[in-house]
Amino acid sequence: MAPQVIPPDPHDRAVLHRLEAVVRDVPVDEVALKLAELRLFLEDDLRQVDEEVRRIDRRETPLHLSAGHLLDLGGKRLRPTCVALAARVGRGFGPEAREVAVAVELVHSATLLHDDVVDHGDLRRGAPTARVLYGNAASIFAGDWLLVDAMQRVAKTGLPGQLDRLLAVLKEMLEAEALQLQNRGTLRGSIEDYFRVVEGKTASLFRWGLRAGAQAGGATGAQCEALEKFGGALGVAFQVVDDVLDVAGDGAEIGKSLFADLREGKATYPLLVAVQRDARLGEQIEGALRENAIDQIEGEISRRIRATGAIEASRELAQKLSSEALESLGTLPASPVRDALEQVAVAMLHRRK
Amino acid sequence: MAPQVIPPDPHDRAVLHRLEAVVRDVPVDEVALKLAELRLFLEDDLRQVDEEVRRIDRRETPLHLSAGHLLDLGGKRLRPTCVALAARVGRGFGPEAREVAVAVELVHSATLLHDDVVDHGDLRRGAPTARVLYGNAASIFAGDWLLVDAMQRVAKTGLPGQLDRLLAVLKEMLEAEALQLQNRGTLRGSIEDYFRVVEGKTASLFRWGLRAGAQAGGATGAQCEALEKFGGALGVAFQVVDDVLDVAGDGAEIGKSLFADLREGKATYPLLVAVQRDARLGEQIEGALRENAIDQIEGEISRRIRATGAIEASRELAQKLSSEALESLGTLPASPVRDALEQVAVAMLHRRK
Repeated sequence: MAPQVIPPDPHDRAVLHRLEAVVRDVPVDEVALKLAELRLFLEDDLRQVDEEVRRIDRRETPLHLSAGHLLDLGGKRLRPTCVALAARVGRGFGPEAREVAVAVELVHSATLLHDDVVDHGDLRRGAPTARVLYGNAASIFAGDWLLVDAMQRVAKTGLPGQLDRLLAVLKEMLEAEALQLQNRGTLRGSIEDYFRVVEGKTASLFRWGLRAGAQAGGATGAQCEALEKFGGALGVAFQVVDDVLDVAGDGAEIGKSLFADLREGKATYPLLVAVQRDARLGEQIEGALRENAIDQIEGEISRRIRATGAIEASRELAQKLSSEALESLGTLPASPVRDALEQVAVAMLHRRK
Repeated sequence: MAPQVIPPDPHDRAVLHRLEAVVRDVPVDEVALKLAELRLFLEDDLRQVDEEVRRIDRRETPLHLSAGHLLDLGGKRLRPTCVALAARVGRGFGPEAREVAVAVELVHSATLLHDDVVDHGDLRRGAPTARVLYGNAASIFAGDWLLVDAMQRVAKTGLPGQLDRLLAVLKEMLEAEALQLQNRGTLRGSIEDYFRVVEGKTASLFRWGLRAGAQAGGATGAQCEALEKFGGALGVAFQVVDDVLDVAGDGAEIGKSLFADLREGKATYPLLVAVQRDARLGEQIEGALRENAIDQIEGEISRRIRATGAIEASRELAQKLSSEALESLGTLPASPVRDALEQVAVAMLHRRK
């Protein structure tokens, strides 16, 4: 059995002191404060994840350099955060939960490496993509390698059924990619297809991470199920917010340009809503996509999307999903961990990158 | 326990009759006769493998179409043949062995799909590659999907340790790809690197398939080890013969053009030997590679490779490896299956595609 991990007491004087220091450097609003609290709460867990990620094979082959380049850029570590919290619903963040957290981050990184090849992506996390630095081939092999490494970690934990579940999730992810590919370049894909893609590409891995994390922490079956449900709703909310950022975010802050998804021919939720409400906009965008001329009508697209109210509709959907996520936590006993999970779901709505 | 599969008696009258029919349509030399015998011996096993492969998810997404396109082209089914024989060293070819045989073919197919993207391959098994028909993205996702499907099959067999072994083999394969990528476009990579690439890219999967097949058939530990060793030697021999075909084969028969590997910047064994013996040839080829002008000196390269004796040296190496493979069978009791394995190793040397 994993050793019991005791969550740091947030009222501890030293913790409070560090909390103040963290808060000093971020915009002082409630969300930022809660995120800073969360970061402190999980500081030790996420440091373990980062250390483990840094220990991943760093030979100087194009494969390992590609994987290392992406991993070193860090990212939000949102998925490992979720895994750590799920584990703390049970006994806490022990070695098995750590492997699950690393695995979920590696699977996510693998999909990014492959996506950048597929989408000819040049910029990721504000830096040139691995494929720009080391070539497409290295990125493909690096993605495969990270997938295998993730599976080896999950196999090592010996958590019953989790490797089988991860394999099924990987298939869901790939099939969602295929569906997205099929609808590429058109805005005529249905909203139903949109949700099938998001469920497969994004939500399924969240679901897996939350459940596996909970199981690793020794949570009860009912708790595992509640957390899996939480992960599913959170994952879709995450993608919808991501979509809003793509059509109405601050490019410099996000680290990629506005309409990046659209330029890759990918339908985002606000865009699908907008073209449902303004059919001429859809035709115009598809025409511009065919001629690679999104740049030239960027301002107009922005204006007309806003005019349809699609941004608000998307934000409302994200809020609804976020509430669903909170609701699924209802069966868990009140605790600092439940509060933290709630904070994640709320902060999700306010993220700007 | 799997039901006992009884190998068909080669002296059975009906079998003999069908053997004659098969032989009638192939050049009547001893190798062809032995291969025809082998095909009859495993007819039922390989039909089961083919049926299972045909049953693989055939939805009309670009992913499934890409995977299906490659699988339907058939290929030599050499790896499933080896698995079936290994299983027959034990109790025979039962359901677990069938899953192993399908898995090994799917992993092989996955690497072909990714290789064709990496190498911009247009032609495979005499047909346009999946990436030409359905795009690079679909081929990448299809390769990933087949890998996951293969792992699910191995997980389902419940054969102790085999999924872990397969994951380790996949890493070996990817790391060999990375090493090959690193040395791409030069002929200055060492012969040592060449063997590291071949061990990883080709031999490791043969080793895995032979051992897992033997285990699925319930062979003893010593038999499993002997067959794993056989697979390793056979795999390297296979690659060396492949290399000889690349520099001295009949393009029309192979289904790809002469010097295809070289054009992709990959060093083959005869080429490495040739440039060791004729340093000027190496410089000339590297220059032509840089200028994409292999076509213009194809005749000269052929002539000068032959002049160094590199083709003979490669054939001798393949013979040596094939003998090593036969030697590792020495511990198995004499049986029709051992004879068949020997036939595979001998036929390997004589293949022309």
